[in-house]
Amino acid sequence: MLEGIVLAHPEHLTVSSENNRAIIAKDGPRPGKVGLVIGGGSGHEPTFLGFVGRGLADAAAIGNVFASPPPDPIIACANAASGGEGVLFMYGNYAGDVMNFDMAAEMLAMDDIEARTVLTTDDIAVEDLERRRGVAGNFFIFKAAGAACDTMMSFDECERIARKANAQTYTMGVGLTACSLPQTRVPGFDLGAEEMEIGLGIHGEPGVRRGPLASADAVTDEIVDKILAEMDPEPGEKVAVLVNSLGATPLMELYIVNRRLSQRLKDRQIDVHATWVGPYCTSMDMAGMSITLHRLDGELQAMLDHPCDCAMFRAG
Amino acid sequence: MLEGIVLAHPEHLTVSSENNRAIIAKDGPRPGKVGLVIGGGSGHEPTFLGFVGRGLADAAAIGNVFASPPPDPIIACANAASGGEGVLFMYGNYAGDVMNFDMAAEMLAMDDIEARTVLTTDDIAVEDLERRRGVAGNFFIFKAAGAACDTMMSFDECERIARKANAQTYTMGVGLTACSLPQTRVPGFDLGAEEMEIGLGIHGEPGVRRGPLASADAVTDEIVDKILAEMDPEPGEKVAVLVNSLGATPLMELYIVNRRLSQRLKDRQIDVHATWVGPYCTSMDMAGMSITLHRLDGELQAMLDHPCDCAMFRAG
Repeated sequence: MLEGIVLAHPEHLTVSSENNRAIIAKDGPRPGKVGLVIGGGSGHEPTFLGFVGRGLADAAAIGNVFASPPPDPIIACANAASGGEGVLFMYGNYAGDVMNFDMAAEMLAMDDIEARTVLTTDDIAVEDLERRRGVAGNFFIFKAAGAACDTMMSFDECERIARKANAQTYTMGVGLTACSLPQTRVPGFDLGAEEMEIGLGIHGEPGVRRGPLASADAVTDEIVDKILAEMDPEPGEKVAVLVNSLGATPLMELYIVNRRLSQRLKDRQIDVHATWVGPYCTSMDMAGMSITLHRLDGELQAMLDHPCDCAMFRAG
Repeated sequence: MLEGIVLAHPEHLTVSSENNRAIIAKDGPRPGKVGLVIGGGSGHEPTFLGFVGRGLADAAAIGNVFASPPPDPIIACANAASGGEGVLFMYGNYAGDVMNFDMAAEMLAMDDIEARTVLTTDDIAVEDLERRRGVAGNFFIFKAAGAACDTMMSFDECERIARKANAQTYTMGVGLTACSLPQTRVPGFDLGAEEMEIGLGIHGEPGVRRGPLASADAVTDEIVDKILAEMDPEPGEKVAVLVNSLGATPLMELYIVNRRLSQRLKDRQIDVHATWVGPYCTSMDMAGMSITLHRLDGELQAMLDHPCDCAMFRAG
C-alpha cells in the first residue's frame, strides 16, 4: 500500500531514506519551522498519509493494520521534519502509539531534538476524558497545528494551538458493519444485518449503544444531541463540519446526513463556516459514518483557512 | 441528498430556480463560452455533481437512483449554462439518458439554443462499440471538455476535443459485491462471498467473467491486459491513471492496485503523467474498483492540466 501511495503522489510524498514506513512531505519541512509528525496504524486512509504536505503535516509514521508504528519510523520522520525548533508529535490516544512515540521522543532527546506530544481525543463516545480516543476529528486538529507550524509560530504557540484545536473538536460515529483484518479475514466483532452501534471506535472498540437500524435523520439526531450536549454552543457560534465515511458508506448517504445536520445546526443558530464530506478517517471497509464539529474562534478559523497542499487533500 | 450537497458546497453549487434537480456551478457559465451540461442517475457520487464548477461542467441534471433525469432539469441546466455559443451534453451511453437528453435538445432548439451530444463510452468490457457504456472514465472526458470550454474554444473545437478524449479513455472494473436499490433493499444480483465479476457495469450490468476471488495483483493484471490489448500503446506514450472505488472498497485496497498498475505500465515503458485514486464514480455501496487509462497527447495533456475548481474535485 505504501508503495502504491508514493507512486500515486510523487509531487507530494517521498519515502525516508532511513525507514520505508516514514513518509515525508516533499515541500514541508524547512529550517526554523516547528516540525509536525503524525502517525498511527494503517487501515484509516486517507488518515494519516493523506494529510502530509505543505501547510499540514511534515511526515507520517505508518504501522501495520490497526497497529502503532514502531519507534524507528517515528524517529526517521522527526529527523526529516526537524527544522531546529522542535517537533510536535500528534496522534490518536491509543496505548501502543503512546508507548512507541514516547520511546522515539526519548531517543531523539539524545540527539538534541526536542519532541512534544499532543494526543488527539475527539471521540466523545467515551465518557472518561483520559481514555478518549482520537478519531476523524484528527483532520481538524492536525490542520490547525499544521497551519501554526507553517506560519512559523514558536514551539510553545504551535503546541498551544494544537491543544486548543483538540479541546474544540467533538466526534461521534455509528457503525453498521464490522471490518475484517486482512490477517484473519473474519469480522472483528458481530453486528447483525439490521443492527447498528452508536459510538463505535475506528478499530471496532465498543460504542455506547447497540440497536436496530434507524433512518439517517434519526441517527444524525442522536449523534448531534450528544455532541451539542457536551459542546454547549452559544447561538451565533461558528463551526466547521466533517461528515466522514468509515469506509464502505458512500457519499450519497453522507450527504443525506449532512442535510439533517445542517438543519439541526441552523435550529441552534450555529453558523457553519465550512463542510467536508467523504472518507477522511476510515476503518478499512467498515460501513458507517461519523460526525465531527470543530468550534471556531477567530484564531482557529484562521488556522483552518490557511492553505495546505497534501497528497489527498487541498484547502485554502 | 441534493439538499445535503448544496448545503455542503455553497461556494460552488446552486440550485436552478427552474428545477430543483438542476444544479449549477456558481462560477462557471458566462457569455461567449460553450456551456457544458453533464448528468445521469444518482448513486454514482461524486459523479456527476462533484464535477460541477469553474473549468469543468457548468451544470448537472440529476435523476433518481440509477435512473435518467427527465428533460426538465436538463433544459434548466442548458438555460443556465448557455452563453450564446451552444451547449455540449455529455453523459454515459445509456438508453434512458439518450432519450431524455435528446428530447431536451429538441425543446431547446425551439428556443434557439443549440445542444450537441457527446456520449461517453469508455467501458471496454463491452465488445460491441455501439453498446459501450460510460463509466469512471467520464472523469477524464468531462475534464478535457470542460477545459476546452473554459479556454473559450469554439463549439466545433469543444466537441472535437470531447470526442477525442472519449476515444482515448479505457476503463474496466471488477465487482466484489452487489449494491441494493434503496427502494428494494435487496441486492441487484447475486454474487457469492468468495466470487468476483470482471467487467461488471456500474448498475450491475453483467461483466465478461465471473470467478473465484483473486489477489489484487492478479485482478489488476487481468484488467490491465485487456486495456493494453485494446489501447496498444507505443513505448514512451503518456497516460493519466484513475483507480476508482465502486463505493465500498477503501483507499487502502485501491493503492495496492495502484502499486501493481504502476509496475505494469513501467514494464511497457508507459509514462504516468498523473494519478487519481479514490471514489470518483461509485455504484452506491458496491465493493469493487475500476482502472482507467487516459492516453495523453500534447493537447489532451493541456486540457487535463488546465485548472478547475469543483465541489468535490480541484486540480491544476
